[in-house]
Formats: sequence, C-alpha cells, structure tokens
Amino acid sequence: MQIQYQKQVSRWGVQEIVVSGKSEGNPFTDYEISAVFSCGSERKKVAGFYDGDGRYLVRFMPSFEETYTFEIKGTALEDGAALSGSFEVTAPEEGNHGPVHVANTYHFAYADGTPYYSIGTTCYVWELQSDELIEKTLDSLAKSPFNKIRFCIFPKHYDYNLGEPRSYPYEGTPMDSSVLTTENFNEYTGKTEGNHFDFYRFRPDHFRHIEHCIERLGKMGIEADLIVMHPYDRWGFSQMTPDQDDLYWKYVVARFSAYHNVWWAFANEYDIMSGKSIADWERYADLVCRMDPYQHLRSIHNCRPFYDHTRPWITHCSIQRQDLYKTAECTNEWRERYRKPVVLDEIAYEGNIQHGWGNISAEEMVRRFWEAACRGGYAGHGETYLSPDRILWWSHGGELHGESWKRLGFLHDILCETPGLGLRPYENSAWDEVAAVPEDTGMSFRQVQDYYLIYYSFMCPSFREYHFDDTTEFELRILDTWNMTVTDAGIVKGKFRVELPGRPYMAIQLKRHVGNKI
Amino acid sequence: MQIQYQKQVSRWGVQEIVVSGKSEGNPFTDYEISAVFSCGSERKKVAGFYDGDGRYLVRFMPSFEETYTFEIKGTALEDGAALSGSFEVTAPEEGNHGPVHVANTYHFAYADGTPYYSIGTTCYVWELQSDELIEKTLDSLAKSPFNKIRFCIFPKHYDYNLGEPRSYPYEGTPMDSSVLTTENFNEYTGKTEGNHFDFYRFRPDHFRHIEHCIERLGKMGIEADLIVMHPYDRWGFSQMTPDQDDLYWKYVVARFSAYHNVWWAFANEYDIMSGKSIADWERYADLVCRMDPYQHLRSIHNCRPFYDHTRPWITHCSIQRQDLYKTAECTNEWRERYRKPVVLDEIAYEGNIQHGWGNISAEEMVRRFWEAACRGGYAGHGETYLSPDRILWWSHGGELHGESWKRLGFLHDILCETPGLGLRPYENSAWDEVAAVPEDTGMSFRQVQDYYLIYYSFMCPSFREYHFDDTTEFELRILDTWNMTVTDAGIVKGKFRVELPGRPYMAIQLKRHVGNKI
Repeated sequence: MQIQYQKQVSRWGVQEIVVSGKSEGNPFTDYEISAVFSCGSERKKVAGFYDGDGRYLVRFMPSFEETYTFEIKGTALEDGAALSGSFEVTAPEEGNHGPVHVANTYHFAYADGTPYYSIGTTCYVWELQSDELIEKTLDSLAKSPFNKIRFCIFPKHYDYNLGEPRSYPYEGTPMDSSVLTTENFNEYTGKTEGNHFDFYRFRPDHFRHIEHCIERLGKMGIEADLIVMHPYDRWGFSQMTPDQDDLYWKYVVARFSAYHNVWWAFANEYDIMSGKSIADWERYADLVCRMDPYQHLRSIHNCRPFYDHTRPWITHCSIQRQDLYKTAECTNEWRERYRKPVVLDEIAYEGNIQHGWGNISAEEMVRRFWEAACRGGYAGHGETYLSPDRILWWSHGGELHGESWKRLGFLHDILCETPGLGLRPYENSAWDEVAAVPEDTGMSFRQVQDYYLIYYSFMCPSFREYHFDDTTEFELRILDTWNMTVTDAGIVKGKFRVELPGRPYMAIQLKRHVGNKI
Repeated sequence: MQIQYQKQVSRWGVQEIVVSGKSEGNPFTDYEISAVFSCGSERKKVAGFYDGDGRYLVRFMPSFEETYTFEIKGTALEDGAALSGSFEVTAPEEGNHGPVHVANTYHFAYADGTPYYSIGTTCYVWELQSDELIEKTLDSLAKSPFNKIRFCIFPKHYDYNLGEPRSYPYEGTPMDSSVLTTENFNEYTGKTEGNHFDFYRFRPDHFRHIEHCIERLGKMGIEADLIVMHPYDRWGFSQMTPDQDDLYWKYVVARFSAYHNVWWAFANEYDIMSGKSIADWERYADLVCRMDPYQHLRSIHNCRPFYDHTRPWITHCSIQRQDLYKTAECTNEWRERYRKPVVLDEIAYEGNIQHGWGNISAEEMVRRFWEAACRGGYAGHGETYLSPDRILWWSHGGELHGESWKRLGFLHDILCETPGLGLRPYENSAWDEVAAVPEDTGMSFRQVQDYYLIYYSFMCPSFREYHFDDTTEFELRILDTWNMTVTDAGIVKGKFRVELPGRPYMAIQLKRHVGNKI
C-alpha cells in the first residue's frame, strides 16, 4: 500500500492524495474510495476516483490556513485498511481568491470577498484540440479580459465541428468520421451506429488533460464553466443510460471539484437533449449537491425554454437569448423573476457565419454587454468568424479575430469601480437610458445615491439633463464604451446638463463628490 | 347672388364653387350650405363652408371623366334659392393617381390602381412657419423620397416649439408667449389663462394657407396626413367643448376633403389628450365617416396604449413604438391582430436631441424601415438634429440634415418591384432573417413563390444557404440597403449558397427566372 501527498498545500489549492489500490475487475465501478478532511474550522467528506494503473486519487481544496488531518477509507484499498495523515495549509498563491460564490443575491464574489464581475467567453471544445492550438487559446486568453470560459467535457459534433477530439472520455473506438460532410453531419447523432465505447470504463487521460487545462485557467484567474452534458454528439455520450450518466457525473465531480475555479454548467441547451427528462436533471443535481464538498456554482443553459431557474440547486441563471432582438435588455425581468445572478451565457456571437446566433457585429456585442451590466447582470462573449482553417473561437479557441473582446476589459474596469458589490437597475431611471446604482446601498431609490452608471445604448443624445437634488455634488465622467475613453467633466450639482457627442454607445458615471460625502 | 365655378375640372382635381351668401350674425354657425354632385357613375352630397367676406365655398373632387351636374342648397343662400350648374371632367393631371385607399387588407393603392408604398415623414407644423422656411421644406421634400407627410392643423407648443405660428385657426388673441422658456414651457397647457379666442369664428386665412400647402404637396405626389387634433397646446385648442370640437371637425372636413391627397390623422397621441374621451373620438369618427364623401384614410396615433384599431372607422394602424428596442419588428403581430395596413408613424426620429424618441442613428432608422417593409408594413421618418437656429425637421421642416432619408428611395424602388401589391411576412422564414413574399399570390406558403425579399437586418452573415426546390430558377440580386447597391448574382437553382459581405443591413432579392415561369 502506497500513499503520496503534499505536506504543504496553499489555501484553495489542491491536495492530491495518491493511493495504490485494487485493479482487478472494473475499478471504475467495482470499488469506492473516500476521505474525510478535518481542521479546526471545517470537516469535509470527499469522494475519490480511479485514475488507472492501480492508482486511486482523492483531491481536496482546503479553505482555511490551518493544519488538516485526513482519513481515507474504501473498498478500493487493499485489506480494507484506513489511511490517514496530516498537512499544513499555507496562504493562497498570488491571484487565487478562492472559488466564486453568490454573494448578495444577484452578484458573485470570490471566497476572500473580492468582487467577481463576470466577463465570460465560450470556446466549447478548445481543450480537446491540438497542443499547439490549446497554447494559442491560452495566449489569447492571457491577452483578453475574460475571467470565465465555458467549455465541454465531451467532444462536440456540430456544424464546423466534424473533427475528432484529441481524446475520448471512455475506452473504445468511434464511428468512422470520414463519411461526414457539412451537408450530412446533421444525420449523425448520439444514436448513430458504429461507435464502440464502454460507458463503464473512463479514459483517465481525457480527464487528466482537462484538469491540466482547468489548472492553467485557474492560474490565469479564469473560471472554468464546465459544460457537463450537451446534445452535439455522434458518439453516444448524450444517449447513455441513467446508470451510466450517474457514473459519469460522480466521476466528474470527484475529479474536478477540488479546483477552485470550477463551475458546473449542467448542460448546454438542456432542452434539445431529447434523451433526458427533467427528472434526470434533478437527479444529477441531487448527486452534485450531495457530492461536491465546495458547492461550486451550478447552472443549466437552454436552447428555447428556460429550465426552471427557481429550483434551489440552481445558483444563477445561465441564459440563451429568447428573441432575435432583445436579450440583455430583459436582464431586469429575469432578476426579478428568479432573484439570482443573471448570466447571459449566449447572446449570439460576434462573427460572420451563416447562422443568426453567430453573426452579430462587435458593436452589438459590446452594446449587449453594457445593457446587461447596467441592468445588474452579466453577458457572455463568443466569436464565430469564418477562417480558411475553419478554426472558430466559439468552438476551437485559437486566435481572437473580432473587435468586441478588446472593449470588454474597459467594462470590467468600470464595474470594478462600483461601490460595494454589483449594480442594480435604478428604479427611477428615465425610459430612454439604462441607469444603474449600486446593489447594496441600504438606500431607498427615492434617495440620492452615491453612484450612478448611466448607459445610452444605441441612442445618440448630444446632451442629457439631470436633477437629483439641489445640493449633492457629483464627479461627472463621460465614458465612450466603444472607444474606451473616460473624460472628466468636473463637479456637477443641482440641475445640470451633460454634453455628449451625439454618437451611440456613450455612458456617464456620477460619483458623489468626496468633499460632500454624507 | 353670384356663383363661380370651373367649366372643366380634371379627374381627382378640385371643383370649387364660390357663392355669395348671408354674412349677418355668425356665418360659421348660423347658416349651412351643401351641394349634390351627380354624373352617370356617382352621386355625392357635399357640405360647403363659410370662407369669410360673404363667400361660401363648396368643393368637390370628381372621380369619373364624365359630365357632372350639381345643385346647391342651404340657409346660407339669399332667398333660400337653389343653384345649379354642370361641368366636364377631363383626364387627371399628370401625376394625380387619385386618393389612396386600402386595396388588399394590408396595403394601399391609388384610385387608379397604382400601388402606393408609403415612405412617410413627420414635420408637425412645417406649414405654420415663415414663407421662406416653407419653401425650404418643399425644396427638401422635392429632393426626398417621401410620399407622405404628417402635420398638424393646430399650432404646436412643445420643447423646441415655443414660437408663435404664422396664423391662428380662430379669431382672437393668444397669451403672451414672451414668458416661455425651455425650463417652464411644460407649465403652460391648453388650460392656460390669457388666451382670448372665439371658438365659433374660424380664421379662413389659416385654413386657406393649409389648403395651399396641401395642393403643393399634391402636385409633388405627397400625401398630406393631416393631424386634426393634438395635445401640445398652450392656446386652448385642445380644450374646446364637444360643441366647439364638432364645429371644428365639420369645418375641416368641408374644407379639406376635396383634396385627393388628404388623410385624416385623428390625433397625435390621442391618449394624452386628457380632455377627450373614447366617446369623443368615436363621435368625431362618426361625423367624418358621414361627412367625407371620399372616405379618405382614417387613423389615430397613440402615445402609450393603442386606440382600438379594430374599430371599423379606422382604415389603418398609425403606430408609435411600444418599446425602446422593438417596434418595426412587431409589424407581423399588429398585422395579424388588426388585419389592416400597419403604418409605424413614429418609430423614433433620426437625430441627436436629449430625448430617446429623437436620437436614433441613421443606420437604425433605415434598419427600422426595412424591418417594417419586409414584415408587410410601413415605417415613418423624422429628423431631430439640433441646430443653432433651433429649426428641427420634425416640427419645422427646413433642411434635411441626416443620412437616413437618402436611403429610403432605394427601399421604395425595391418595394415597387413587388409583384402585385405589397409584401407579407413569409411564413417559412428562417428565424434569423426577415423574409417577405408578395401579399396576393394565391399561393400556399408551402409552394415555391415567384418572389422573395430577404433582409438580414443587424446580422452580418458572410453567406446564407437556401433550398426552395430542385428545379425552380431564380434571379438572385444582392442588395446593400445602406450603400444602396444592387449586385446581380446570376441564376440560382436547387440548393444554393449566397455570398454576402459579412456586414449589417444586407438583403437579397429572388425573382423567379422568366424562362422558367410557371
């Protein structure tokens, strides 16, 4: 019996305990292993998993800078012997603020209290591409403002996604994909014959690789919004039995939970996974809620109808547009309906492909981000520019070709200036602007607020007039959200007029003048 | 007793019979005059009116090239004597196609059968400005594609509209307007003291001037969409009694009906005319339906809630946007709900003023026109660019400063290519395009149509694929609705691909190839 683990782990880092165990039969199904981790401030039970070659792993993310002890049990161990040990938890690595959680109903913060303003993107299977392309994606992400990326654990079969992934999650062999064309790919589904996968035997290298990618993202400060299930399938992964599904979910949760930057995106377009019923999704949710010791964020994304986002297991709304024209504009409604953070993970992608979900302009993408932000929610990016190599950011990652991503860091900077945590729609907003105030002011909407962020969207006013009260002084700044300029316009008071350039995409920021702070 | 009239009138021209009559007392209320006009094909009773200086006028628009006789009666005539006469009706003047009517449920045509595709604008009180400015407006209209203009009979009091009109509709004197400022104008309403008008004595010069403007428009092929009542008032014209209102409506209908290009816009923003009830509007409608011998088009425009456009007297919907973001996009819904032409008379104006209804971009204006057109309706233009002289097209006319008006003639040209009369939304349209087919094809939507006009709005596809059937040949043309280019892209058949530039505001036109006509 061998055991390996680190004597020292940083807070919100990963303690990985490697144990040798039984390998006869099917170790993925025949045995189990778990551990209890304890320190003065917490005690957590954690499932382990089989990693191949007679190795079992138990991973743990400590939340306190204390001395932890652990005890490992399970039928996977030789002689059924219990193993134990202890380790020290040191200060977090620089940039690790811990997992993101819902902090004040509508907004997120890291475990250390730092606000988290989501600027997400989608690259469905970037991590299943070649090493070279993965590095290119990581380079692009490093230059970008993105602090969340949505991607799938299973490979993707779809328009522009006919290639084979770098690895499969299961032992076995796929159908012959040389028959696929852009014309016929739709005829191949998860029910297609010719695949021979053993849904009871995982390929640990597939998952190990994804973990590696999650870790890389974590070090870059990017949340990994893991899409656990999706319908774009020709291999049968969307058509497994409940038994097989549950095995998969358990394996995923056991492997990935200890990474601080993991979010659970239960599905992409749950409603077009014809094989799954609401009861299935609820069963997976029950499993994740019981098994994930850290209660990572949980969401489920729609094609057409929303999942019932009032379900208690759902931590935030992950929304795809409901209308060709309006989506970010509905953020207020969804906040009120669900009383949860509203994340618009799919508001159409910047690009030029033939599909309406993948050909909005950069200007429109940035506009949707600002609309969502000033209504107290969070939009998501994606890019679908045709390129000769058929590498589209939205699925494959690679290089960013668009213009919107360059402007989203500016929005993030402005969001980070919000007093407290997050914005909410200002109840006294004029009908022809999108006005936000801080979420948690303890102030009535009738009172003059300390901070206003007012966005004019597609409208082109050359001036606007305001009158909050006669005495409060504000610092006025004019923001050009497209050109990313901030212009100080001095101190204003009483009835005042804001001069604007008569162009779209302008905003203003009003901060109560410090000399006048109440 | 004197009588004057023309011995020859052109079809859809104006026969004006001038009779001397009683002038004691108040000729506007104390006497009446009417005439019956007859020819082989029609017989119409027409109300006359007092034009001042002992002159009564009876006007008539003949619809047939025949010999007409007339007989005039009324208490206005000395001795109560009846007068009669006859005249010949010749061919219409060039460009006079007769009045516009609803021709096939959703679309308009002139009386001679020529399709009328409305490209409207709004200049609320252009005709009440100085002679110089009026000429400038007419020059601008002559260069423009507009074939309808909405304007008011009463003067307008509103932001940017604080000046006095060139004349008043009634005898009397207005309040002292030197007290008005852009800050306080809202405090002055139709109930304001200081006006001394006699609502029983019209000033014929006010109406004569408007008639002159209607005639000028008529010769230019522009419909005069006359706003008979509106709430933007400091003189009391919006606050008259039912008795006074009815007198006004009768005078308006008697004076203006004989002009072929008149439409009755019952109100601008009927719902903010606090003094008027639905019963009032219905009474005016009853009066107009009874009195207008030509049954000119009738509509009523909203601020917030629509008037009940299902009312039989309403010939078409005159709509103001219901939502900051979507209006033209709802044309389909309104067609289905009301089964009448949908005219979006107010979808916000191109400009840069502070108000959201007056600061959309030219691109957005043109986009809204195309959205409406490809959904089987008609948008309306307006311009609200600030200028040092505070002359804004939307109210005063003058010069056009924007960029949208230049692009609307291109849309009109394309609409004129529609086979039959008008477009309807194509029921088999993809979700991510706005596709139209001819209204009256007698074809099921499952059949391949002779003509498709497909608009991509804000989306930027670099190509689109279609497959109507395997055999029909189409002439394909690529339209850039902003740059106004038409590119022939040859004959297509079967499954075909359309190459597009990946920019917004593109459209395509597909015409069944003549060599292949069924």
